[in-house]
Amino acid sequence: MTVIIRGGTVVNADRAFRADVLCFGDKVVAVGESLEAPPNATVIDAGGQYVMPGGIDTHTHMQLPFMGTVTADDFFTGTAAGLAGGTTTIMDFVIPDPRQSLLEAYHTWRGWARKAAGDYTFHVAVTWWDDSVHKEMGTLVRNHGVNSFKHFMAYKNAIMADDETLVKSFRRALELGAIPTVHAENGELVFQLQKELLKKGVSGPEAHPLSRPPEVEAEAANRAIAIAGVLGTPVYIVHVSCAEALDAITRARSRGQRVYGEALAGHLVIDDSVYSNPDPEFARAHVMSPPFRSSHHQQALWHGLQGGNLHTTATDHCTFCAEQKAAGKDDFTKIPNGCGGVEERMAVIWDAGVNTGRLTPSEFVRVTSTNAAQIFNMYPRKGVIAVGADADIVVWDPNGMRTISAKTQFAKGGFNVFEGRTVQGIPTHTLAAGKHVFDRGELRAEEGAGRHIDRPAFTTTAA
Amino acid sequence: MTVIIRGGTVVNADRAFRADVLCFGDKVVAVGESLEAPPNATVIDAGGQYVMPGGIDTHTHMQLPFMGTVTADDFFTGTAAGLAGGTTTIMDFVIPDPRQSLLEAYHTWRGWARKAAGDYTFHVAVTWWDDSVHKEMGTLVRNHGVNSFKHFMAYKNAIMADDETLVKSFRRALELGAIPTVHAENGELVFQLQKELLKKGVSGPEAHPLSRPPEVEAEAANRAIAIAGVLGTPVYIVHVSCAEALDAITRARSRGQRVYGEALAGHLVIDDSVYSNPDPEFARAHVMSPPFRSSHHQQALWHGLQGGNLHTTATDHCTFCAEQKAAGKDDFTKIPNGCGGVEERMAVIWDAGVNTGRLTPSEFVRVTSTNAAQIFNMYPRKGVIAVGADADIVVWDPNGMRTISAKTQFAKGGFNVFEGRTVQGIPTHTLAAGKHVFDRGELRAEEGAGRHIDRPAFTTTAA
Amino acid sequence: MTVIIRGGTVVNADRAFRADVLCFGDKVVAVGESLEAPPNATVIDAGGQYVMPGGIDTHTHMQLPFMGTVTADDFFTGTAAGLAGGTTTIMDFVIPDPRQSLLEAYHTWRGWARKAAGDYTFHVAVTWWDDSVHKEMGTLVRNHGVNSFKHFMAYKNAIMADDETLVKSFRRALELGAIPTVHAENGELVFQLQKELLKKGVSGPEAHPLSRPPEVEAEAANRAIAIAGVLGTPVYIVHVSCAEALDAITRARSRGQRVYGEALAGHLVIDDSVYSNPDPEFARAHVMSPPFRSSHHQQALWHGLQGGNLHTTATDHCTFCAEQKAAGKDDFTKIPNGCGGVEERMAVIWDAGVNTGRLTPSEFVRVTSTNAAQIFNMYPRKGVIAVGADADIVVWDPNGMRTISAKTQFAKGGFNVFEGRTVQGIPTHTLAAGKHVFDRGELRAEEGAGRHIDRPAFTTTAA
Amino acid sequence: MTVIIRGGTVVNADRAFRADVLCFGDKVVAVGESLEAPPNATVIDAGGQYVMPGGIDTHTHMQLPFMGTVTADDFFTGTAAGLAGGTTTIMDFVIPDPRQSLLEAYHTWRGWARKAAGDYTFHVAVTWWDDSVHKEMGTLVRNHGVNSFKHFMAYKNAIMADDETLVKSFRRALELGAIPTVHAENGELVFQLQKELLKKGVSGPEAHPLSRPPEVEAEAANRAIAIAGVLGTPVYIVHVSCAEALDAITRARSRGQRVYGEALAGHLVIDDSVYSNPDPEFARAHVMSPPFRSSHHQQALWHGLQGGNLHTTATDHCTFCAEQKAAGKDDFTKIPNGCGGVEERMAVIWDAGVNTGRLTPSEFVRVTSTNAAQIFNMYPRKGVIAVGADADIVVWDPNGMRTISAKTQFAKGGFNVFEGRTVQGIPTHTLAAGKHVFDRGELRAEEGAGRHIDRPAFTTTAA
Repeated sequence: MTVIIRGGTVVNADRAFRADVLCFGDKVVAVGESLEAPPNATVIDAGGQYVMPGGIDTHTHMQLPFMGTVTADDFFTGTAAGLAGGTTTIMDFVIPDPRQSLLEAYHTWRGWARKAAGDYTFHVAVTWWDDSVHKEMGTLVRNHGVNSFKHFMAYKNAIMADDETLVKSFRRALELGAIPTVHAENGELVFQLQKELLKKGVSGPEAHPLSRPPEVEAEAANRAIAIAGVLGTPVYIVHVSCAEALDAITRARSRGQRVYGEALAGHLVIDDSVYSNPDPEFARAHVMSPPFRSSHHQQALWHGLQGGNLHTTATDHCTFCAEQKAAGKDDFTKIPNGCGGVEERMAVIWDAGVNTGRLTPSEFVRVTSTNAAQIFNMYPRKGVIAVGADADIVVWDPNGMRTISAKTQFAKGGFNVFEGRTVQGIPTHTLAAGKHVFDRGELRAEEGAGRHIDRPAFTTTAA
Repeated sequence: MTVIIRGGTVVNADRAFRADVLCFGDKVVAVGESLEAPPNATVIDAGGQYVMPGGIDTHTHMQLPFMGTVTADDFFTGTAAGLAGGTTTIMDFVIPDPRQSLLEAYHTWRGWARKAAGDYTFHVAVTWWDDSVHKEMGTLVRNHGVNSFKHFMAYKNAIMADDETLVKSFRRALELGAIPTVHAENGELVFQLQKELLKKGVSGPEAHPLSRPPEVEAEAANRAIAIAGVLGTPVYIVHVSCAEALDAITRARSRGQRVYGEALAGHLVIDDSVYSNPDPEFARAHVMSPPFRSSHHQQALWHGLQGGNLHTTATDHCTFCAEQKAAGKDDFTKIPNGCGGVEERMAVIWDAGVNTGRLTPSEFVRVTSTNAAQIFNMYPRKGVIAVGADADIVVWDPNGMRTISAKTQFAKGGFNVFEGRTVQGIPTHTLAAGKHVFDRGELRAEEGAGRHIDRPAFTTTAA
Repeated sequence: MTVIIRGGTVVNADRAFRADVLCFGDKVVAVGESLEAPPNATVIDAGGQYVMPGGIDTHTHMQLPFMGTVTADDFFTGTAAGLAGGTTTIMDFVIPDPRQSLLEAYHTWRGWARKAAGDYTFHVAVTWWDDSVHKEMGTLVRNHGVNSFKHFMAYKNAIMADDETLVKSFRRALELGAIPTVHAENGELVFQLQKELLKKGVSGPEAHPLSRPPEVEAEAANRAIAIAGVLGTPVYIVHVSCAEALDAITRARSRGQRVYGEALAGHLVIDDSVYSNPDPEFARAHVMSPPFRSSHHQQALWHGLQGGNLHTTATDHCTFCAEQKAAGKDDFTKIPNGCGGVEERMAVIWDAGVNTGRLTPSEFVRVTSTNAAQIFNMYPRKGVIAVGADADIVVWDPNGMRTISAKTQFAKGGFNVFEGRTVQGIPTHTLAAGKHVFDRGELRAEEGAGRHIDRPAFTTTAA
Repeated sequence: MTVIIRGGTVVNADRAFRADVLCFGDKVVAVGESLEAPPNATVIDAGGQYVMPGGIDTHTHMQLPFMGTVTADDFFTGTAAGLAGGTTTIMDFVIPDPRQSLLEAYHTWRGWARKAAGDYTFHVAVTWWDDSVHKEMGTLVRNHGVNSFKHFMAYKNAIMADDETLVKSFRRALELGAIPTVHAENGELVFQLQKELLKKGVSGPEAHPLSRPPEVEAEAANRAIAIAGVLGTPVYIVHVSCAEALDAITRARSRGQRVYGEALAGHLVIDDSVYSNPDPEFARAHVMSPPFRSSHHQQALWHGLQGGNLHTTATDHCTFCAEQKAAGKDDFTKIPNGCGGVEERMAVIWDAGVNTGRLTPSEFVRVTSTNAAQIFNMYPRKGVIAVGADADIVVWDPNGMRTISAKTQFAKGGFNVFEGRTVQGIPTHTLAAGKHVFDRGELRAEEGAGRHIDRPAFTTTAA
């Protein structure tokens, strides 16, 4: 299949320029002005539009089994929603139970992901430690295209990694050429604050942010960075939500340490007033960890993206319907944590980032795609429009407008944290591995078309 | 007994002024110009000298049982050495074994301390947690004059307090009106670094600082501060040795958090070159934790004292003789940690602090005595020369010179980390509880003359 | 005249304690429990109340000639209003015109101040430079009790001091043992922003804060601190209003530099929404420089006071009536800058500071009185309740309530920036130089009773 | 002319990959594995070597008239030396005298530059202000390929720009789509410190760094950034030499401001001990502004490059021979300021940056070439090896060793600040505009072969 995108402005992380883009099979085969195309080529008119690398959402949870139930979006509906929004690759998480084999869990998730409509790849969580974990990390890196491992510093009595596990796993990752990532919240403090709040009778969703204040996140971020710094490994902090955690990253980077940070679309534009909404269903629908923060923090996160102290944007897409969320109606600690966004991320960030002058189009590409591809070693297959790259492309109309609503979304779950937000700047076409999967509102996602993206270990580039 | 100190300049934390000081019994009874004194009064001529509150060393370990041996200085020799140096009160540590009753340990230490020549009081360490610890903390505060509890974040597999213990103990202290204090080093990282170094065959004293880099201290300081901040309790960081840990304190204070920091005389003037000394006995003699640091850190600690981000000065006086230190000659992790200094602290800080213009005499008094008295609720009994205060006084000759040496020291252990340092500014007389215990080089310390100083819980001052 | 204040809790910067206070003439003559007093002594019942050193307002402009008019409060009404609010000493400003003799201006202000009801002392502004200024600074310090000099970094084409003047005057102050102070705003930027706003037709009071954004203040604060740091002189920044300027101070202090900062009561509790008030008269009444800021900055200023990076509190009391303010009704740059507050400062800071737990009563005394007395060398005559100190005392009822209003204030100007604010914690009695000038709402201020307070140069305290 | 570089690892800022590079005329025409080349093509064997974009030195002064003399290197010898070191483009400075027409000065420099062997482009200094300067800035941007303007904040009574000039020029640059750059040192402080030192009789080269301490640089950097921030323009700080100035940049970037910083090769590796060298000729040879700093600052600069707070590397190449330097033998303020380095920059930074693990090869390319090309709008013509880019290429042997010496350098001046330094990692071949100008030690620089590089104004990229 041949597709030619004509007349647009190609935007890569390093620059923007007028060019046609010719795709054949699943690859980009030519980028240049006035390209020739075979007569049977599909022609996409990108006049007056930007042509950008497909988005990479570095943080999703599709089909996540949780508290006896499973998230609303599976790998098909979740990746399909992503394609509708211009995101062509997701990075999901394999989360083994404590004592479970990492490989076994990995294969389970690979099985679930077979139905994906878009490309996917996995971070594998290290939720416990013994020699077998050490060994299986090696197998995953060498044989299964895994080069990032996730650590939860929260969720005491469940999947929380203590300092010993962090130290051992970070060191093992370094040895293997993989990058450790962390969910940074001090699990002990969260646990104690939750108990205290419940004891005081504060059990509604308004208690959720009180149990996870910024200091709790900043402490853990600082600790993970210190451990990484002492061991000499890079580290990646997922869903940085507050100024104080960002400060920990900024301080480390200013000392020359290789620390990367991820911001969620939701954290960039939604504030914590949602938790005091009189409708508890609405409030519960926003329960995720870290929670939404006051507007001061949103401003800080934008500064982080602008100044190069935050690098990627994601969603933590993890959707539950109202009934699932209601499991915590009498106890906020039982509300399944998670919100959606894989479909809206690109548009929300464009609207709040590019239209306001905070980001140039190239910087938008950098934080929605290129940096993710580089940090997680999928570059230049992903993250750039260039000859040889995967034909994962979004055509973007900077003048197009859309009002986001659960009623019109492709994702499941029946709720949208961006409900009612009108954005300017929307995807008109998405190409995924060379296929024209989204065409001006029409989604042509195909179950099983997505591929697992192997990510090789990092190595030193020898001359 | 009546003593009158005539003709000196009284230096308190708030100001310096010419005045005589009249002491009767154990108290100051008058401060003023040209005071009358009974004919039998002992007259001390302080002409051309400063008259300052006796020093408070907030951090000592006398008679500490350790690895089957005991520190060289007991409560008599240790406090006597303090008196010779102008320090009239020490704050020592009760360190219960894990699972040992706090009260039992407290009484053991009280028994050992009966022979002290100078006043003393105790921080009690919380090295483990269960309901009995919770209860005994209350008993100690209410009935035994304890208002500070110590937590070791280092020393894994021994007395290390994990986050759960920190959270529970800090909260309990807050409830009781006591202040938590921490030894801030990430025990897990130290443990792993020690193992790694030994595995690589780096087993001499030069490995000691490598196993405890600044990041290890800064992480723990930041964590303790975060926990304290979330719980709303003040916190005191003992022996801050590096710029990065100080930064954690400075950041917290600039956010309005009540955080206090202690600097050791040794850390202020000795650098880490001691560990690469070709004489391993010399190097071992300097093994303490945190270790001595590069000169950059000394500069930072002075800045901390000057800018009000560090508050007290101490020594961690904990002396071992060369034979004891030799226990670690093949394995640096087995070297008993500790150095002396209770006798030299005041002179070393005066010389490096006041003579250089870093501190005014009033600021010297603040960081060697007054702040300690206020933070640990002994003020105005201690920490000030005023009517009604304890007659703990040092007369200080700013022109007097002394070359420090183990050969001439009163303390035991046979080693002095300040060996060969010539200081200008020395004590000429010390009064302890009104007794003239040090007189121009002659030490008249009396075994058992020291008193336990009860420190009441903090309460809000009602009008 | 003898006055005894009975049954209260004396609060000094270092501690609070139950004691009676006996005053004779203009001095405190005894502080202690159950004091004897002569039968003719005035007895003030302070039961259930705090007894604190009278407030020092470090920054007022009484009777300031300005744009052909003069501020509403003269030295009598202004100091009288202060006495009603518990402030017994003001520090006002002598502001010579460029090319005017400093001494001449000084004598003019001294003449105006003769009618003051409370004590006063002067900062002298250095608004230009030549050898005569250099010389007159010496005369002022040696013969006229001046030990602080003010520099305006704003007000281009008027009284702005350029870098050359700053360098020369700071160095001269250092030589003389005086402290330089600065109004920190970059005058060039303010000037250009004003021109730009007027050019765009933005001429109402809402333009005022736009012409003086935080960066403008932070730049100047940083510059003054750098100059002081290079020359080795302490420096005092008046009316710090924003987080960024405070950061400059905090950074310098953490490097050990002696930098002091002053916060205004208004900046601590009023936000910038006043400038968008639909009533332009109301908005104009709030025009002062630096302007009120968003609430984020108020929080920062409180943190500064709590953490010891800000030291004093003042008002910049400089009142104009509505007609005077109307001079700028078509051009915001012509609105006379200034607001009141000398009468409300203590109560506003107590209410927002002590009642909220931000400050202890002792810390309140420190930032409203003691630090000012120490920084400007009036201590211990001012700033403490102790034998020998001036009998400047405020008796404070922590349960008393008052709703602030221009209708009930003693100060002139017909407007109150704290209008409608109900405070808990109010003065019930004020003693000024031993006279009972305020008695439960009744003001007995006496014209001319105030004294000029000579402030000697700083010298090193020799033993 | 056709050149093919075979068998190397192409290193761009975004990645490194094995590829041949085919150049025709002055352009790269193909990049790929196993490229075909015409039989007459020059073949360069890059086996085991890196193939990188030619370096861009953002800061040189060739043929600079100064104090009645002229720098030792003219545009031919200077650019030729650059080619020998792998630098193919220099950015030099047009420095009009105060009151001189910018255009006139620009044409003078263009005339001098005609003999250049490598490509060049000019920053134009704004050393004074009136309407004609405003107008000529427009002409330079629109008609002469200038998009950056330089401002000296030092050099009082000569070319120093005061705040008014800075504000007006920055705003004009913003309007034109040009970027302002600054030499950040507070000229007033330097001037006063110089006078003070001379007055004290400190007149040798050891006085030079004392007259320009870090605070002097940090103040100016902070001020320029504040002005840029208020006006909303990006700003570029040349030759950042100290931690404190870097901090000002880091703070601004963490607030989202677009600030760029340049480090000099010399500042990265040479410390201030050179000024206390007993040989005054040696010390004088190192006199440049800002001066070399203590090693603490070198560490900070590397951290800046690593963490993305510094962006470019340069030399401030400005060579004077010993006789010229001797003009200041009795007065350090008369020593012509300047050192060399255009020839050694790449190798010195590789050796101290890449060999130590501080920088990856891609990061090396970013800070020696790509960032400069992007910040100054020469990208992708310069700064990348890609089809269509200028064939400015350096082939780099990571195993090659060289000991730097004035005896073997191509540059003039007879002195080398890197004398005796052995570096590993050296250029073996340089292509400049497709010409093979340096071949394993043989320099084939051709007078006049260099071209002026027009740099267009920045514009928003429309879709």
